[in-house]
Amino acid sequence: MRKTKTSVQAKAKNIKLLLLDVDGVMTDGRIILDNQGNELKSFHVRDGHGIKLAQRAGIIIGIITGRKSEAVNIRARELGITEVHQGAHEKIIVYGRILKKYGLRDFEVAYMGDDVVDIAIFQRAGLAVTVADADPAVKPFIDMATRAAGGRGAVRELINLILKKQGNLPTA
Amino acid sequence: MRKTKTSVQAKAKNIKLLLLDVDGVMTDGRIILDNQGNELKSFHVRDGHGIKLAQRAGIIIGIITGRKSEAVNIRARELGITEVHQGAHEKIIVYGRILKKYGLRDFEVAYMGDDVVDIAIFQRAGLAVTVADADPAVKPFIDMATRAAGGRGAVRELINLILKKQGNLPTA
Amino acid sequence: MRKTKTSVQAKAKNIKLLLLDVDGVMTDGRIILDNQGNELKSFHVRDGHGIKLAQRAGIIIGIITGRKSEAVNIRARELGITEVHQGAHEKIIVYGRILKKYGLRDFEVAYMGDDVVDIAIFQRAGLAVTVADADPAVKPFIDMATRAAGGRGAVRELINLILKKQGNLPTA
Amino acid sequence: MRKTKTSVQAKAKNIKLLLLDVDGVMTDGRIILDNQGNELKSFHVRDGHGIKLAQRAGIIIGIITGRKSEAVNIRARELGITEVHQGAHEKIIVYGRILKKYGLRDFEVAYMGDDVVDIAIFQRAGLAVTVADADPAVKPFIDMATRAAGGRGAVRELINLILKKQGNLPTA
Repeated sequence: MRKTKTSVQAKAKNIKLLLLDVDGVMTDGRIILDNQGNELKSFHVRDGHGIKLAQRAGIIIGIITGRKSEAVNIRARELGITEVHQGAHEKIIVYGRILKKYGLRDFEVAYMGDDVVDIAIFQRAGLAVTVADADPAVKPFIDMATRAAGGRGAVRELINLILKKQGNLPTA
Repeated sequence: MRKTKTSVQAKAKNIKLLLLDVDGVMTDGRIILDNQGNELKSFHVRDGHGIKLAQRAGIIIGIITGRKSEAVNIRARELGITEVHQGAHEKIIVYGRILKKYGLRDFEVAYMGDDVVDIAIFQRAGLAVTVADADPAVKPFIDMATRAAGGRGAVRELINLILKKQGNLPTA
Repeated sequence: MRKTKTSVQAKAKNIKLLLLDVDGVMTDGRIILDNQGNELKSFHVRDGHGIKLAQRAGIIIGIITGRKSEAVNIRARELGITEVHQGAHEKIIVYGRILKKYGLRDFEVAYMGDDVVDIAIFQRAGLAVTVADADPAVKPFIDMATRAAGGRGAVRELINLILKKQGNLPTA
Repeated sequence: MRKTKTSVQAKAKNIKLLLLDVDGVMTDGRIILDNQGNELKSFHVRDGHGIKLAQRAGIIIGIITGRKSEAVNIRARELGITEVHQGAHEKIIVYGRILKKYGLRDFEVAYMGDDVVDIAIFQRAGLAVTVADADPAVKPFIDMATRAAGGRGAVRELINLILKKQGNLPTA
């Protein structure tokens, strides 16, 4: 974990933008391929509910991924996510553009990734979060790892934490 | 867990209608998407057996889900479930209609859900049950959580409990 | 576990026919459905290797399942299994026919199932085996449960045990 | 584990070629079949990242598998793997040919397999590695088993170890 003077709880309070990696974060990391070139991805229903709850609370959700797949577009459309950046070879550049577009600063952004390609963003984002089963090399750069693995509720876990701290977690 | 004077065992005895959420309860929560807009859901064979056993014992099975998918219709048809309510944005309204149709009261109904959208029904149903991997926010509103996760036998576990208490659990 | 005078090890020595249930035994119990009526099943590669090893050692492999799916035919063909009995509503009748066809007696047969519909065969087969995640109701009728769950190597585990006892387990 | 005078760490330093089995190593062992003869395989995103990192560090990656599937060709193409040997009934022969082609000796090769058909290569390769959930019979022939199961990051774990020892593991 990276050393910062601010706690995860305090950081969560400032989040206005949540940026998510896809494979291994929004999905369980499985790249499912059939014999005809079709690719399937496995998202989680409770992550989807969480994303909708966050949006209702005014948090912007965005997707940044190095891969490209129509399944991601379909899932994003379903969840009303418009900031969908696929095929991002330099994720940090996309990150910078999104912040500029919304006039946000690093401390207002949470980023969730699972691998070394995410480290550049981890170093800038106010709240840097990874999944339970992430590549060990990301550890020194994150504020917290979720208890849930990628695609098994990790996104929801982070959203619950943010919404709770901001006083927007629904309970009934 | 909610505080009630009646035990889970005693409540199970009264159940004549079992209403089930789909994603995360009848399935493992995975929303599997391919590149052509096809969606796959992962049900469990032993849940299916359990649903048939419950039906043979005279228990009505119904489905209430906020999503919509043909896979659910296919699975329901296969299991002889006719009360299939998809795209239910206000689950509690559907809940009320089903009870009216069958002339049943809350204490005769078990409901199984996994998320905050299920809380309104949890508050009315006689037996409110969730899965091992449910969203933590449902906890104060349920009578019990199954040991099995959604889509991994959770429905069967509840049905076994109900049938046992009602003296209808087959053993050979 | 059922009480018998003979140990699992001793029983394994006699096995000439291994009969397998499909869903929850050869598969992980997932009934994966898409929106177009297609059904997918998830078999395991090391179970497949085990079945081939057993066949080379002269053990006949057969399949008895209550469901019907083309995926089972495809997997059976791939593994050279010719005794494929799908849509078997009374599994015990199919069981009797197969034994008669091969002139085998109960003590020469191992059966692997995971649910109450398998109990009638468990009561006759010489070696009655279930998977780690079976329905609890089968417990009094089996000789052993594998450590592996269905579709995660349970079939291989039983085959390894049988081949080892019969002196046919390959090691290099 | 096999007895050798050299430690896994020391062996990792020499590796110039990493040969991988597919089912149960690059995948989670699931053979997913639908009703139309289509076969799906489940690879892992972080294994893919690792393979690219290894290639950038100059390590050649090859695939040797007894099965045949177009999904493997698709995944290999995506990862820039050109040494793809499917339908290899005698894996050891393919192994010999690849080494000859690249002018490599056994101690420069790591091999990752999960079953008894891999033992012949395990006996020759300088670094013989298996997955957490491998068939127990391979144990006497390997240098190490990964903590991750096949298809859940096992390949990445080995690559991380090799790259670290060779001083090529990226950290930021």
